Amino acid sequence: MKSYPLMVIGTVAIDEVETPFGKRDSVFGGSASYFSYAASFFTKVELMAIVGKDFPIEYRKILEEHSIGLDHLQVTEGKTFRWKGKYESDLNSALTLDTQLNVLLDFKPELRPESPPEFLFLANIDPLLQMNVLDQVKRPKCKFIACDTMNFWINGKRKELDSVLKKVDLFVLNDGEARLLTKEMNLIRAGRKIQQMGPGTVVVKKGEHGAFLFCSEKFFSVPAYPLEEVFDPTGAGDTFAGGMMGYLVKSGDLGFENLKRAVVCGSIVASFTVEDFGLDRLRKLKLNEIEERIEQFKKLCHF
Amino acid sequence: MKSYPLMVIGTVAIDEVETPFGKRDSVFGGSASYFSYAASFFTKVELMAIVGKDFPIEYRKILEEHSIGLDHLQVTEGKTFRWKGKYESDLNSALTLDTQLNVLLDFKPELRPESPPEFLFLANIDPLLQMNVLDQVKRPKCKFIACDTMNFWINGKRKELDSVLKKVDLFVLNDGEARLLTKEMNLIRAGRKIQQMGPGTVVVKKGEHGAFLFCSEKFFSVPAYPLEEVFDPTGAGDTFAGGMMGYLVKSGDLGFENLKRAVVCGSIVASFTVEDFGLDRLRKLKLNEIEERIEQFKKLCHF
Repeated sequence: MKSYPLMVIGTVAIDEVETPFGKRDSVFGGSASYFSYAASFFTKVELMAIVGKDFPIEYRKILEEHSIGLDHLQVTEGKTFRWKGKYESDLNSALTLDTQLNVLLDFKPELRPESPPEFLFLANIDPLLQMNVLDQVKRPKCKFIACDTMNFWINGKRKELDSVLKKVDLFVLNDGEARLLTKEMNLIRAGRKIQQMGPGTVVVKKGEHGAFLFCSEKFFSVPAYPLEEVFDPTGAGDTFAGGMMGYLVKSGDLGFENLKRAVVCGSIVASFTVEDFGLDRLRKLKLNEIEERIEQFKKLCHF
Repeated sequence: MKSYPLMVIGTVAIDEVETPFGKRDSVFGGSASYFSYAASFFTKVELMAIVGKDFPIEYRKILEEHSIGLDHLQVTEGKTFRWKGKYESDLNSALTLDTQLNVLLDFKPELRPESPPEFLFLANIDPLLQMNVLDQVKRPKCKFIACDTMNFWINGKRKELDSVLKKVDLFVLNDGEARLLTKEMNLIRAGRKIQQMGPGTVVVKKGEHGAFLFCSEKFFSVPAYPLEEVFDPTGAGDTFAGGMMGYLVKSGDLGFENLKRAVVCGSIVASFTVEDFGLDRLRKLKLNEIEERIEQFKKLCHF
């Protein structure tokens, strides 16, 4: 088995998405798919997830084309996790119309004890599973662990999530989740409160408004890359995290200045994701387009 | 009569403000008061407005202490304009509880034809009055005109506002107003649409999310200075505009790079305003504190 410097543990899904610009069935989705695809522009990344026997071979090929490690993609009897969502005209939040967990109910992520990844990302899954993975992790071999979550877990599994937060280095969440978690409207105070829950570094994604990075007592604020059209926001958060983590792994530098650049990189990769359905835009994307947009972006927000 | 390079025409008011942090009667307010006070850190500014005989001498002294020109502050029989507002916990939008126009109903701004200001700011007043002023303005002696407005006029005097927008160089408004005016949720598209209505330069203020600057085909995005506590948002928009215009007048440079710096300067002055009730924070403020916060801010958002 090959070893990879970065591993993501999350979901692989088949989505049905409706936006003001159109509707599409059978979109290849899931947090781990988006994350790994985005990270793979920068580093070798391995995906740990579960799918059913119905998982299309074409989707597997999409990941393989980007050299994403699939040794830990479990294929089991049953159907792949399915999500159906809709975005209203403001495109800021998805309305979940249907969730079919299917094989996700059987997901039991297991790390290889002999070769844990150096960088680990726990994408949005049940905090119980995230905690289960953290219990298997050997520090300091695994030197940087980040995680994501969602409002569903903040409301439903708060105690388990609190345990997870005590053990991760970086927590990435969106503005609504940060407010829900801390009961703080002010996002600066919310970010500081979350740091006190465990992760020394917190990234609060604000969609069209950019992102905040809290790192020890330091702070960084970056606007979003300006887009006249957001076609489909699905996967923006996961590709943000993937771009950010991929950049960190590639550079190998966990200092604050480099974390800032990683946040910008994640934000820029996400700005491509939302330009089309699912992974469609990322599949056409070249690394130099990302680099060019970062340079262009610098001009738009430096003074 | 002294002549001033910058004039603001707007309101001078007595406010009653309630925020989650407290309540205060008889707060010195009004768009022209806030604007002129902020601008006076950078340049000589003259205020044109109307007040009643009840206008407190202490308020006049506050303006005089900052050398704000008051030759055009009309004092007339009747009561000064009064506004009563309340902010809920999100502090993003004020709920107007009461408005007493009083002497504002008699306001007829008249420019001195022989010495128009070089820079003119039409703060938030009836677009009919704004248009009336614009009809008196002699170009090119008056070389730069900017204006503000509010949702009330967008909904109620759209035709008059459209006429105003055709004649100004810069239009500054907030995100909600930009969306209302253009029926566009996407603020980039909204800003571009507003440029097509007349003003070559548009500034969209986004409160805690910063601001956008649209100038010809160019674009600039800046986050807000991070504040853990926003005490009273009243006057933030007017001091933003005042700081921005004051900076422009002082530098005398209307190029895009300098407009960017002016927007940052306005945003930073506003970040002080919201730290206390009314003008209380600005009254204690020193120019070097503004400069220091701008430098500090640069570090928080450059990468």
